[in-house]
Amino acid sequence: MLPSRGVLRPVDPRRVRITGGFWAQRQAVNGTATIEHCRTWLDRLGWTGNFATTGTGTERRRGREFSDSEIYKHVEAMCWESVRPGGTDYSARLDELTAMIAAAQAPDGYLHTAFGRPGQPERYSDLNFGHELYCAGHLIQAGVAAARTGLAGGLLEVARGVADHVCATFGDEGLCGHPEIETALVELFRVTGEQRYLDQAARFVERRGHRSLPEHEFGWRYFQDAVPVRDGEAFAGHAVRALYLAAGAVDVAVETGDDALLGAVVRQFDRTLARRTYITGGMGSRHLDESYGDDFVLPPDRAYSETCAGVATVMLAHRLLLATGDLRYGDIVDRVLHNVIATAVADDGQSFFYANTLHQRTPTEAVPPDREQLRFGGGPRAPWFEVSCCLNNVARLVASLGTYLVTEDDTGVQVHHYAPMTVDGERVTVDTDYPEGGTVVVTADRPVTVRVPAWADGATPTRDGDQVRLDLPVKPRWTFPDQRVDATRGCAAVEVGPVVMCAESVDQEDGVTLDDLQVDTSVAPEATAVKGRLLHRAERGWPYQSREDSPESSDPIVVTLVPYHRWARRGPSTMRIWLPTT
Amino acid sequence: MLPSRGVLRPVDPRRVRITGGFWAQRQAVNGTATIEHCRTWLDRLGWTGNFATTGTGTERRRGREFSDSEIYKHVEAMCWESVRPGGTDYSARLDELTAMIAAAQAPDGYLHTAFGRPGQPERYSDLNFGHELYCAGHLIQAGVAAARTGLAGGLLEVARGVADHVCATFGDEGLCGHPEIETALVELFRVTGEQRYLDQAARFVERRGHRSLPEHEFGWRYFQDAVPVRDGEAFAGHAVRALYLAAGAVDVAVETGDDALLGAVVRQFDRTLARRTYITGGMGSRHLDESYGDDFVLPPDRAYSETCAGVATVMLAHRLLLATGDLRYGDIVDRVLHNVIATAVADDGQSFFYANTLHQRTPTEAVPPDREQLRFGGGPRAPWFEVSCCLNNVARLVASLGTYLVTEDDTGVQVHHYAPMTVDGERVTVDTDYPEGGTVVVTADRPVTVRVPAWADGATPTRDGDQVRLDLPVKPRWTFPDQRVDATRGCAAVEVGPVVMCAESVDQEDGVTLDDLQVDTSVAPEATAVKGRLLHRAERGWPYQSREDSPESSDPIVVTLVPYHRWARRGPSTMRIWLPTT
Repeated sequence: MLPSRGVLRPVDPRRVRITGGFWAQRQAVNGTATIEHCRTWLDRLGWTGNFATTGTGTERRRGREFSDSEIYKHVEAMCWESVRPGGTDYSARLDELTAMIAAAQAPDGYLHTAFGRPGQPERYSDLNFGHELYCAGHLIQAGVAAARTGLAGGLLEVARGVADHVCATFGDEGLCGHPEIETALVELFRVTGEQRYLDQAARFVERRGHRSLPEHEFGWRYFQDAVPVRDGEAFAGHAVRALYLAAGAVDVAVETGDDALLGAVVRQFDRTLARRTYITGGMGSRHLDESYGDDFVLPPDRAYSETCAGVATVMLAHRLLLATGDLRYGDIVDRVLHNVIATAVADDGQSFFYANTLHQRTPTEAVPPDREQLRFGGGPRAPWFEVSCCLNNVARLVASLGTYLVTEDDTGVQVHHYAPMTVDGERVTVDTDYPEGGTVVVTADRPVTVRVPAWADGATPTRDGDQVRLDLPVKPRWTFPDQRVDATRGCAAVEVGPVVMCAESVDQEDGVTLDDLQVDTSVAPEATAVKGRLLHRAERGWPYQSREDSPESSDPIVVTLVPYHRWARRGPSTMRIWLPTT
Repeated sequence: MLPSRGVLRPVDPRRVRITGGFWAQRQAVNGTATIEHCRTWLDRLGWTGNFATTGTGTERRRGREFSDSEIYKHVEAMCWESVRPGGTDYSARLDELTAMIAAAQAPDGYLHTAFGRPGQPERYSDLNFGHELYCAGHLIQAGVAAARTGLAGGLLEVARGVADHVCATFGDEGLCGHPEIETALVELFRVTGEQRYLDQAARFVERRGHRSLPEHEFGWRYFQDAVPVRDGEAFAGHAVRALYLAAGAVDVAVETGDDALLGAVVRQFDRTLARRTYITGGMGSRHLDESYGDDFVLPPDRAYSETCAGVATVMLAHRLLLATGDLRYGDIVDRVLHNVIATAVADDGQSFFYANTLHQRTPTEAVPPDREQLRFGGGPRAPWFEVSCCLNNVARLVASLGTYLVTEDDTGVQVHHYAPMTVDGERVTVDTDYPEGGTVVVTADRPVTVRVPAWADGATPTRDGDQVRLDLPVKPRWTFPDQRVDATRGCAAVEVGPVVMCAESVDQEDGVTLDDLQVDTSVAPEATAVKGRLLHRAERGWPYQSREDSPESSDPIVVTLVPYHRWARRGPSTMRIWLPTT
């Protein structure tokens, strides 16, 4: 994103080269294996082929109503990857897909492969679930990425045609069941300077929350149409929809100088962080409607914590960081990157969690690499899903990660996230072993600000000539939940820097089941082990009794921990982050 | 049900008259208001009208694919109500509906209004969700009720026609995605003596669990087709499907003398009670697929605890009681009746909980009396649901409640549940104020056995001539959960006899929010109040901190309690059963 106002300015991702460490490895895998993997599946399932299907009716179209958006996100990912320092060049692929997409555009600018052709439903006949404006938004974002990177020539024009059609059709009324068009239109305004795109985005933002979409069993809240954006208390309903809409609202607020709108989003996001966010930074408690729960309803069991909600949280938090200059928004980005995004992707970059549970009670068999997963919300990482939004979403985020690490303003540069990297050639360099280690050294030809995470009690940066040095206390620490989170009462977790740790069954001694352990928080945790005890319980026929539950006996044990993002990589296992305390 | 073997024998509901108290009131409301209410909605929505729609295609059929079953359950309820001592006579209505149903039957016996007519899907083209055998099962159960009560003349013949068609079609293969036909066919065998119905039921039971149904995103477990009935560890998947299938398996086991099959159900039910059942007796944790959670996944928040699962638990537990003679199965029936069934129905008998949550965080507006609720799983009681299975299910259970209270064997009578009642005229009488009071006096002309609930520590019946007296300690008591139930760790609940208590916001002092209280379990609870404290907390921007969460200050308070089944009857409110302890 490239806002025209705000306290801080983003840097073009071409200016940032991640030179080593955790995220360099992830970017390399993402830029080759993941992007190739997504293309293979998009072709195999016929989702690319839908663009060549003209006038043949629904029976030949493949995939769900939002499958077009996967091609657009794939294009966006390839744009960022191709210009990333050290990235893979996909310019030929981009030209091929651009031609394919352009050929499918109707003369009036409309473009969606599931509506409006002979035998298909009418255009905009299902605003709740048709995802037409959602797909248009992703196409526009791909067009913007094309313009910013100088690749995929012609795609910006396709995107403008789509946007003009949207403006012409939705000037007076109408909404999409899935927000996304809002932020896309503002981005298109930023690239083209066309005021009407910003105006239309602002209209979409203001139009929400008045219950104009058709009634549905999930309620208007699911579609972000229950309460006006300015009036919400905390994010509610479908988490990705809520976060995408909020990102669009921030974009509108920044470009129109609407501080009240910006303040409304800040207030809701802050409350959401305080009451509706998992320790991993994940959002969304409910499987049924992929929604936020009520305040403090954050069960680790079957936590939804959708990968796309992680991507969207990064998008929103970074926008708020830019708009307000409040560096604490970097904390949630750091947390989400290390505990949601890093967790979602397998080491080979070819299988993915759609939902990122915090507690796995029953070991689950892996999904074979050639097999699509029907149910998207549960189970192990899978190579593909019928609803496969998260894969290309992660791919575009990781390919463009550089732009999230550093910002600038008139006085200098701000380093928000610590990876070995260079900015503007070698004019700014960051040396660090973060997150394993806590030493960060920034060498720069200009003034530097660094983020001190909230968990880094008392750490302060020191300056020595052109170097800023930060020593973060990444030693393991106990973390305790707000007691209003019923589901984790009486538990503690271990964190190391931004990394949440977990106990995974495959690491424990024989006979240790995760249901039966307690940990001793009076002893400082080590990086990979905490002291505790294994409970031996009497079996009971009814789990509710007139005396407090206590074990028959217990044995001292050492509970082995691994970073949460490393779990489910060594065969079926059980896992828990929150550990009952003695 | 009327098994031909088993340790105990059921009594014909005509022999039992509930003469006063809680359930007499419920039966009176059920027999008039609820049954009338259901008929009004069945007509209004066109579900009865579907039976008159012949050869007109799908566009004129109304409701979901299982709506026929609601008419059949309604018929069954009216049969039991009409013969219940003191009940309302619906014999004219029964004749009317029987004629309507009979007229819709195809010449070959098939009867379902959503399949097989011109413009409709083919018969048995959607075994997962078509509910054709499910509806056939409920029709057969209605026919059995007709035969047992001597009402609805001709309905047994319709049911036999349907059953013969099922036997002819499903002799070699095929299953319904929703069990129900199994128990119905055994009941039909019991009424008619036709062995082929029992044989077909046994085939259906054995055929399950081999993954022969089409694959679906919910998995075979949802459809009870993942694991053979004999091999399961605990009930899993869709709770109502699991319990209906288990009831059918017990029926088959009893009639065929298959102790291994009976033992398999006993083992799974016992484990389900120990690990997958809420304190209310409710079953099913998940909204998404209305399923059991894994062991100990019993979050009070958004507990599903479907009303129909309560009905099905009563059905199954009573079957096991009859088959094994193990009186402890009465405990779960008692618990479900007082905490699920009693909770589900409004005082006027005209609105209903579909799901019975144990913790309400946000007050919810009532559904207007003329309005169907689209989403069945959440929110307040509603007059009707798009999926309205629970209403007629409760109606048929409450109308036939007498048969669940008492059994007999060659030596005498067993009284399992305590209500003021008479059996066989006045040959057996029960005087009691249960559950408010604990005194039970049974006067009988034959030997009497009474159930001593597990919570009634040390209570023993005393005999004096023709009287048996039982004094149950119904004073309020603290109850503590198994600590493996993460969601209730560090909490306690209050129970009074079989009744689970709750704190509802409308009863608390000003300023007391249910999120911020703790109770002192060192002080004995009173019936409607416990001592505790109200916590005053500092607001925090992030709910996970390096120090244990503790309040800034607290004030002593008295927390007012009401029976859980009384909640949500005085306007929007919050509620919790499990109370954090100091």
